[in-house]
Amino acid sequence: MSAGPKFPQVEYADSTGALRRCYDDMQSVLGVPWVMFAARSLAVFGGFVPAAWQAAAPVFATEQVARAADELRGLAVLPGAAPPDPRPRLAQLGFGDAGVAEVRTALDALNHGNARYLLLITAWCEGVQGRSSGGGTSGAALAPARPAAPAAGMAPLHLVDPRDADERVTGLLTRVTDLHLHHGPSSDFRVLARWPDFLEVALDDVLGPVVRTAPYETTALALLDRARAHVRSFPAPAGLSPGQALAVCTEAEVAAVTGLLFLFQRFILDVTIDMVRCAQALDGPSSPLR
Amino acid sequence: MSAGPKFPQVEYADSTGALRRCYDDMQSVLGVPWVMFAARSLAVFGGFVPAAWQAAAPVFATEQVARAADELRGLAVLPGAAPPDPRPRLAQLGFGDAGVAEVRTALDALNHGNARYLLLITAWCEGVQGRSSGGGTSGAALAPARPAAPAAGMAPLHLVDPRDADERVTGLLTRVTDLHLHHGPSSDFRVLARWPDFLEVALDDVLGPVVRTAPYETTALALLDRARAHVRSFPAPAGLSPGQALAVCTEAEVAAVTGLLFLFQRFILDVTIDMVRCAQALDGPSSPLR
Repeated sequence: MSAGPKFPQVEYADSTGALRRCYDDMQSVLGVPWVMFAARSLAVFGGFVPAAWQAAAPVFATEQVARAADELRGLAVLPGAAPPDPRPRLAQLGFGDAGVAEVRTALDALNHGNARYLLLITAWCEGVQGRSSGGGTSGAALAPARPAAPAAGMAPLHLVDPRDADERVTGLLTRVTDLHLHHGPSSDFRVLARWPDFLEVALDDVLGPVVRTAPYETTALALLDRARAHVRSFPAPAGLSPGQALAVCTEAEVAAVTGLLFLFQRFILDVTIDMVRCAQALDGPSSPLR
Repeated sequence: MSAGPKFPQVEYADSTGALRRCYDDMQSVLGVPWVMFAARSLAVFGGFVPAAWQAAAPVFATEQVARAADELRGLAVLPGAAPPDPRPRLAQLGFGDAGVAEVRTALDALNHGNARYLLLITAWCEGVQGRSSGGGTSGAALAPARPAAPAAGMAPLHLVDPRDADERVTGLLTRVTDLHLHHGPSSDFRVLARWPDFLEVALDDVLGPVVRTAPYETTALALLDRARAHVRSFPAPAGLSPGQALAVCTEAEVAAVTGLLFLFQRFILDVTIDMVRCAQALDGPSSPLR
């Protein structure tokens, strides 16, 4: 992770006009309380995000996507031993039940959103690479949209800005970034950075021992394959083909979008697995999908 | 793979001025007869390629890189059964020893270059993500450069342009692209497209059964880890930090470069494994590293 310049993006607070409306609609349709890092970064490149969201929105308003997201969350559980319960060590640090409850509520929102964003970025990634992002052979009509509203009990999330964080939090965010070979801290870890005791214990005991191991990679691969299968079965294309992208971007912008979608697809796969595992650590092995 | 627009890049034949000099020096120092797709695509974004190559060139002129590349090629051999010998089926197609010898010569050049380009892109990727691309703690001086010249016996390579190819070749290049979930055909497969019989048999029997399986992913992961370890031990940084990249690129260009480096790092990992396996298929299991 760079200790220097922030990765280029249009943060929600800085968005205006068509992009702000797109950010708002994305959160409303997906029922998530944040705009993914990928969309904020892609927003730097021409008209891709508003146009790609316009393609995706009718598909993502269907129950089909909600069911697919539920299934992906189940597939994100790593094989092998369940993670240790972080509560005893957290209690020793003076981080008690109230703090754990706050973290657990945030994890609910993150888990809800990550699986949806994984489907969205997979559709966009497949589309811009010239493969199907839905609507292929079925010819099925779009199902009626479910009511667009934040999911019940979805708390607003606060993303810590690494530039404003203290040394301990900066160190933790650098550690999580380098652990995954990411280019910066994900939204999810910027949320968890609000509770550095939890983030530190999670890195030491829940995530550090498993990230980038062979079972982790195998799980990411299976999750990606299943996400692609869901995308291909979408009733209509949820991404833009290279030709469609060129209608709203320059050639160089399409190249940039292609690279960033590939990077962020892996990024979201990792974070999806991580947040499910954090929830599993707090809930015990029997109920990782709350 | 897109059947439509070509992925933005500056081809060797279209390069001029500082970029052409950079392309020539890269081929001379690395002893390779082609400029990697990654560099041709990154060349679209500001001054990144010439500046990043300027950082890398003294390191890549050392024997240390040549030895690291040799080791990586050995690690690119997949575990499990050796690939079947493609010659009997090729002979049935009328593709005889002379054709096989041409392919084998091309594979030598590709294997020589892929491992070097994997190290180069890993250094650039780590650097732009704010991690070490060499020169960390050792303080060792740069070893004297070895003579810069094309490696002995290195044949010039011809890359087929997918836009000029016939239906069969286009179909094969689309197949190889989608098999790997790539965004377009690599230089290596554009070279092999000159011999569509070989490419078809390789896809059917040598690569198709293994690409993106769990052992393939595990091999790619190990190869990446080892490439990163080599890069960290380089005597001087061979990549640009985010701050250094910002001296030759806009913020948006740095984001584009970051995404494309991530995409092409995985791309080169795949292609490195694939070409070693093609050589192994022709040579038998005992000598995959010729």
